[in-house]
Amino acid sequence: MDTEIRQKSGAQLLQYAPFSSCVDPRFWYKLSQLKLEKYKLSEESVNIDGFFSNVSTLGMGLRVSVDESSFERNSGIGHNLLPMRGTLMNKNTLDGFRDLDKKALLQEVGKELWKQIQNGQALENPTILNSFLLLTFADLKKYRFYFWFAFPALLHPSTPVYASSIHDIAEEMNPKQVASLGDAYSNIPAESPSKQFFIVTLLNDNCDIASLATFNEKVEEWRRNSATKFYLGFADPSQLEANPGWSLRNFIALIHHLWYPDLGDEVKVLCLRMEYGKGGSNVAKSICVTVQLSSLLAETPDFPGTIGWEKNLKGNMGPRMADLSSSLDPIRLAESAVSLNLQLMRWRLVPSLDLEKVEQTRCLLLGAGTLGCNIARCLLGWGVREITFVDSGKISFSNPVRQSLFVHEDCLEGGKNKAEAAARALQLIFPPVRSRGEALHIPMPGHPVSKAEEESLKSAVARLEELVASHDVVFLVMDSRESRWLPTLLGAVHQKLVITAALGFDSFLVMRHGLKTCSVDPGGDSPPLACYFCGDVVAPGNSMKARTLDQQCTVTRPGISMIAAAYAAELAVSVIQHPLGGGAPGISLEKFGEEDVGNEREADCVLGKVPHMIRGFLSAWHQLGPATPAFSQCTACSEKVIEAYKSEGLEFLLKVFESSAYLEELTGLKKLQEESFDAEVWVMDDTDDDETEDHDDLRGSVEDAASS
Amino acid sequence: MDTEIRQKSGAQLLQYAPFSSCVDPRFWYKLSQLKLEKYKLSEESVNIDGFFSNVSTLGMGLRVSVDESSFERNSGIGHNLLPMRGTLMNKNTLDGFRDLDKKALLQEVGKELWKQIQNGQALENPTILNSFLLLTFADLKKYRFYFWFAFPALLHPSTPVYASSIHDIAEEMNPKQVASLGDAYSNIPAESPSKQFFIVTLLNDNCDIASLATFNEKVEEWRRNSATKFYLGFADPSQLEANPGWSLRNFIALIHHLWYPDLGDEVKVLCLRMEYGKGGSNVAKSICVTVQLSSLLAETPDFPGTIGWEKNLKGNMGPRMADLSSSLDPIRLAESAVSLNLQLMRWRLVPSLDLEKVEQTRCLLLGAGTLGCNIARCLLGWGVREITFVDSGKISFSNPVRQSLFVHEDCLEGGKNKAEAAARALQLIFPPVRSRGEALHIPMPGHPVSKAEEESLKSAVARLEELVASHDVVFLVMDSRESRWLPTLLGAVHQKLVITAALGFDSFLVMRHGLKTCSVDPGGDSPPLACYFCGDVVAPGNSMKARTLDQQCTVTRPGISMIAAAYAAELAVSVIQHPLGGGAPGISLEKFGEEDVGNEREADCVLGKVPHMIRGFLSAWHQLGPATPAFSQCTACSEKVIEAYKSEGLEFLLKVFESSAYLEELTGLKKLQEESFDAEVWVMDDTDDDETEDHDDLRGSVEDAASS
Ligand SMILES: [Zn+2]
Ligand SMILES: [Zn+2]
Repeated sequence: MDTEIRQKSGAQLLQYAPFSSCVDPRFWYKLSQLKLEKYKLSEESVNIDGFFSNVSTLGMGLRVSVDESSFERNSGIGHNLLPMRGTLMNKNTLDGFRDLDKKALLQEVGKELWKQIQNGQALENPTILNSFLLLTFADLKKYRFYFWFAFPALLHPSTPVYASSIHDIAEEMNPKQVASLGDAYSNIPAESPSKQFFIVTLLNDNCDIASLATFNEKVEEWRRNSATKFYLGFADPSQLEANPGWSLRNFIALIHHLWYPDLGDEVKVLCLRMEYGKGGSNVAKSICVTVQLSSLLAETPDFPGTIGWEKNLKGNMGPRMADLSSSLDPIRLAESAVSLNLQLMRWRLVPSLDLEKVEQTRCLLLGAGTLGCNIARCLLGWGVREITFVDSGKISFSNPVRQSLFVHEDCLEGGKNKAEAAARALQLIFPPVRSRGEALHIPMPGHPVSKAEEESLKSAVARLEELVASHDVVFLVMDSRESRWLPTLLGAVHQKLVITAALGFDSFLVMRHGLKTCSVDPGGDSPPLACYFCGDVVAPGNSMKARTLDQQCTVTRPGISMIAAAYAAELAVSVIQHPLGGGAPGISLEKFGEEDVGNEREADCVLGKVPHMIRGFLSAWHQLGPATPAFSQCTACSEKVIEAYKSEGLEFLLKVFESSAYLEELTGLKKLQEESFDAEVWVMDDTDDDETEDHDDLRGSVEDAASS
Repeated sequence: MDTEIRQKSGAQLLQYAPFSSCVDPRFWYKLSQLKLEKYKLSEESVNIDGFFSNVSTLGMGLRVSVDESSFERNSGIGHNLLPMRGTLMNKNTLDGFRDLDKKALLQEVGKELWKQIQNGQALENPTILNSFLLLTFADLKKYRFYFWFAFPALLHPSTPVYASSIHDIAEEMNPKQVASLGDAYSNIPAESPSKQFFIVTLLNDNCDIASLATFNEKVEEWRRNSATKFYLGFADPSQLEANPGWSLRNFIALIHHLWYPDLGDEVKVLCLRMEYGKGGSNVAKSICVTVQLSSLLAETPDFPGTIGWEKNLKGNMGPRMADLSSSLDPIRLAESAVSLNLQLMRWRLVPSLDLEKVEQTRCLLLGAGTLGCNIARCLLGWGVREITFVDSGKISFSNPVRQSLFVHEDCLEGGKNKAEAAARALQLIFPPVRSRGEALHIPMPGHPVSKAEEESLKSAVARLEELVASHDVVFLVMDSRESRWLPTLLGAVHQKLVITAALGFDSFLVMRHGLKTCSVDPGGDSPPLACYFCGDVVAPGNSMKARTLDQQCTVTRPGISMIAAAYAAELAVSVIQHPLGGGAPGISLEKFGEEDVGNEREADCVLGKVPHMIRGFLSAWHQLGPATPAFSQCTACSEKVIEAYKSEGLEFLLKVFESSAYLEELTGLKKLQEESFDAEVWVMDDTDDDETEDHDDLRGSVEDAASS
């Protein structure tokens, strides 16, 4: 920065951290389009909107960004971004761009700003203190864009400004007062001018934020009551300890011109800096600058000089150039558009959302039926880039109307493989996605294989284990109960996050299999979370009846699969956002009282609660969220089973595939059955509405599967 | 039927209603496939499964159906269909088909059946009394299938059987006893042999149904206690007053051979016939036949003769032919497959579901964004055949990952129109759908038009009105609040079912605008249901703030749109299934107590409850279903507004488009505002979790829209 430096004893020269510009490629795309369709040869100035933020968690620093939406005024920027008005001057030729008198242009802008300070309009709308100029030339043949930003700052007062102190807000206010300031600031809508420049008064522990237009009134209040403290404040995007952001420069010009000497020798300026953490937003990183007004000349220039052209990347005063000849590639545009859409969630609503974590999550979908297709779509919407489908089925004529990645053509000539077709469909939707499909058949308990088939079974098991190990989340969305057994076991062995979804006619179950480290209740001693099989007292594949229910798969209300798929994907993303990931404690949603609403607890992530399971009932438009503990004799996730697999490997699996009764022997379930066999377990009637009342029953909590 | 008729005084000759066969085209498709891939030149008999039903509501009559699933044994047939075992004999040549000794074949089957009756195995598994033979020849070159069904019936006893009485069950049992019989029968799984042939004992008001294998025991019970009544029963698909179904023929052979004369001179046979109505299933249409055993010869043939070859459509004993050369067209196959899938819902789970009503519903989707795309998919899954999209937007690069009918290619060259692309996508998924797209711009309050634009506005209004009038359900799923106003008004004018869906970041609102005739609570006096605008105290388009919120549209969790879309489609289908349609009363879901679960009420349809609205909150995995009354000063649905439109037409609309304040004048809202203006109404913060607690507030119950 070109702030002049002059020494003065006992005080610190104020140096401002400058804004820097950031242009999304889609800004150029939109500009090209507008140039061709609307502006044509006009060189008239165009009003555009940029945005910046004083929320440090967003990591935007002092950047002022423009993107596609910059051309639509009032495009509603949200709570964490602050709008900055800009003026775009697009020249028709490179010569016009080069030859424009940039100094004179900036003086024009400065003159207008100074006029608004003098006539008091700046008090009504102080956001004009933050503004930018953008000079451009668009070479539409080569897709090169020349541009130069200016952030106009008045050279007023003409002498340097000193601060008698620059200190943390903690030295200025007690924690209660800081909290009160944060609350008051949060309540101001992002669009309000008072979000950018404002007056703060502090009485006891209560902070009040008011518009600059109320200056006289507020000063009077302050003078009347000596217990009141008075500050001027502004949204400060700087994160430097001793350097407030560029906005303070014009603010001091206004303060000095309008309110000195009325304000006295000094004024305290709050440089308001927000961050998000556990418990919401706070302003604890703010600083306070005591500005020495008395050291300033009492001058009233016709208009002060104006500076502010941005330096280029080499550190010189000069324009920059964006070469988009490659990135106007539609695939890159799609990438940028999708990522912008996701960033908006962060920027506008959930600053602590970790989108990178979601993007890097490798998802394995075992099943490419109604659930698999819809879950993949939802993951794509969340920005997941690596999705692998496993399904050995072929697409049949009844599938496309419910399985959202397939079309009629996929059914011809016997039907394409579902997994491969689903992977291909994702690429047609969003080419950068890394999707794959494998027509792997998942071996099942109680489905014996012949000697001849053993080799192919061996390789299927090995491949499935490789896939589980090389992904982060495994979705069990196949259409038979037995086929979920091996992946559940492998998920437990490799301690992966496993999400199961299963459908009834108008009900669904979505649950996560917790890691060993996660518990039913937050805290140390409670047992880990149940898996899909923990509720069973017979091994999968051992029940004719269960198989029959499984095969009723397609008989579901079409909406059920969409809802369950959305919940499955959203549950996965919530778990990913939890600091403990798959180890996040699962808690029964019913345990939340009204008093918990809005309170962050250990079972919450930035997206809200992280339940163990959700059971929904469409006929009653109702859902439940019980949490159940793992069963020590579970046929899929118990220690005994995991140990047997670890020590015997394929030999163990062969015994299980031969007869699932082996699992009942191993886990001691058989003994349990003999001791207390309750024939009623079998009479599960999945058309019976009464099941809505059975949710607390462990057996009732595991629903029969249906997805394709 | 070739039942011999011989007169006998004082009694009625028993004549049986025969089974008739019904072959789904997909049966032939599957047979062709199996013939080519598996059977090849083998002529070995194959076991297949057919199904029939004694539920009259299903409208299947005495039909025994086979379809694709017939080749998979144990394919889990559900609660309303009864399995019938069959034997398929497919001949390699037409000569082989013609020359087979059909009489001898039937005798073979009869011999085996007779053996099982004699050795008592038929008591363990009486379903063998119902069985069929299917003789086929598949001409795979011409796609012609020759076939002949037989439903084997033993000619035993060899003399005619007389009934001393055939009467309604109401003459036999009191209503309590009939209800008890119905309950006992419903509790038997469809797969159980006792669902088809069984013993009924009646003591006081309690009916008990038992397996034929318990005959001795049951007869003893009956003899011990003279208050007990004893019946033999069977599942009777016949709906004729005096003619039981064909199954009774073999049953009487068994009864006569095994239990006469032990049973006495007569036995009462219950011909059990089910129907579904309000309150679930009942057996009130059953009849009771008193069979005169004493009139029968006491004979024990080595084996009795067997009859049962089906007549063809001309009424002759002869084979039939299905010419599928045209219907093996993949589009017809898709149609048949999708319709079968839907029928399964009815057959297996919800017999009174009116699928035709859903299929005939013409749906208008105003908006082809995330919600529009997903709702259309869900409607397609439900069998809706006519879907029209209206959207003037173009597909942008960020759309395909969330808008499930678009792919990357649709974004190229400036992007296709959303409505047209969505309509085309539906056809690619399911070619028979009648989908259309129109790039119509919907005029909005507070968006004035110039004189020059008036003509195009006029035609837009006229077209929109035409569309509303020519569809049955209108979905409001656009991305701005104002654009919902005109369609809401037109929906109210034409008294159409209107479903609105709107999204927040992690919350949604799905609601229906009730017809004038529908009320908040079932019953006469309560007010009609609110529309989307009923909760507002300002006219749409009159608030800068509201517009800003609307434009935060894309900032939603991806799962939210799937869930809301599924609820919107399922709510529409539920309303369609309600006897009162759009006039169905809407009731707050919160008013349902535990005691209501499973009870049918006036607010229920066959699919369950029919609420007014559903508000969901994903961060808490929670949803609410309040019902709110219409507002007499509503800017969209109140009488004053409807009257103004009816009398002034376009003139009225022009005033509203010019300034939405006109609506506030007209409805008296302005006066209301002046009287009690509450600035707090404006401070709606849609990122604030506290909104979950605001649901009972009428203002809070209308959420800002977001769909594209
Ligand atoms: Zn387990
Ligand atoms: Zn209304």
